[in-house]
Amino acid sequence: MADYTLFFNPMSRAQIARWALHEAQADYHPVMVPWQDKPEALIRANPMGKVPTLIHHHSDGDRVVTEAAAICHYLAEAERPELLPSDAEKADYFRWLFFAAGPLEQAITARAMGWAVAEKQQIMVGFGSYDRTVAALENWFQTHDHVCGARFTMADVYVGSAVVWGLQFKTLPERDALTAYRARLVERPAYKAAKAIDEELLAQMPR
Amino acid sequence: MADYTLFFNPMSRAQIARWALHEAQADYHPVMVPWQDKPEALIRANPMGKVPTLIHHHSDGDRVVTEAAAICHYLAEAERPELLPSDAEKADYFRWLFFAAGPLEQAITARAMGWAVAEKQQIMVGFGSYDRTVAALENWFQTHDHVCGARFTMADVYVGSAVVWGLQFKTLPERDALTAYRARLVERPAYKAAKAIDEELLAQMPR
Repeated sequence: MADYTLFFNPMSRAQIARWALHEAQADYHPVMVPWQDKPEALIRANPMGKVPTLIHHHSDGDRVVTEAAAICHYLAEAERPELLPSDAEKADYFRWLFFAAGPLEQAITARAMGWAVAEKQQIMVGFGSYDRTVAALENWFQTHDHVCGARFTMADVYVGSAVVWGLQFKTLPERDALTAYRARLVERPAYKAAKAIDEELLAQMPR
Repeated sequence: MADYTLFFNPMSRAQIARWALHEAQADYHPVMVPWQDKPEALIRANPMGKVPTLIHHHSDGDRVVTEAAAICHYLAEAERPELLPSDAEKADYFRWLFFAAGPLEQAITARAMGWAVAEKQQIMVGFGSYDRTVAALENWFQTHDHVCGARFTMADVYVGSAVVWGLQFKTLPERDALTAYRARLVERPAYKAAKAIDEELLAQMPR
């Protein structure tokens, strides 16, 4: 039995989890989840039935991790401590991991859905405005090659996925700092290996 | 000089950070931030000017942490390792921390703003639906006293704040599992101490 089970669909945020699994060099069993027919084992682990959902088959019992950002970080904790931040990197690492999971994800979703935020509502909606949220991200990568500076960490899998997907689907604007960050990430062997698997599966799907 | 500077406004998510500072027993200097007149030191640390923003005045230099969830976790890392999860608790700890920062925050915001999500858009918007998101939360606390089970960890400051605020502002429904969880949290001395300070400041504010 593999150490991990990954419930996924290639057309979902599960691509982030697969990349993390490859960065972590983890031994995993992938289970494809059709949107309309969710396996019982997935529902037992995560009643929301969302993908990605990861089960760690630990000697003490199964541990369930949901939320793509949590899966990334958990895998570094469990499998690849060298992808965790040093003490000096922790502030940046957690700041940007939660920035991407919270305000950035919200800002991109709200814009994609056409949800407008009036100026006096900006305090309430956490991300403030799309433009300021994107500017904060761009600003960081103008002076940092990675989330924690010079070195790649697991936070880059999650924050980087937001940038790669955002640029691909044009939910983020083409900005030099963001395209340069993407270029650094997509060269990674683990990114390429994970991407190739999901692309192959997508190519086989009925249209 | 205090170890930390907290930029805050009592009428904001900065209340979460203050509770975390008190749980961490950290030495901090609070700087009140008026909405219309943001201190330069805050803008230098966080160009978005958002509160809470925390600066850790470390002997190696200042470290900036933004995002309430990141501030909670960072403070446990830096000051109170006993509030961090054990290896066996890590899956639950990070899963629910990111669940609250991502889908839960989004679901509550979308509902408060009156943003509707059609069924076929539910895949796109991470949280799926408000009802299913709230059900997942309720479901967890029907069988767990805290995020990680029996024991209080720093994740409870963030997830718990979402529950306390959600119940107070009626953005979360009154459910037994949630009100019982809130009751356990508001008895904590650190919660009471932090809350008393923010309430006092709120009472002094012009209306």
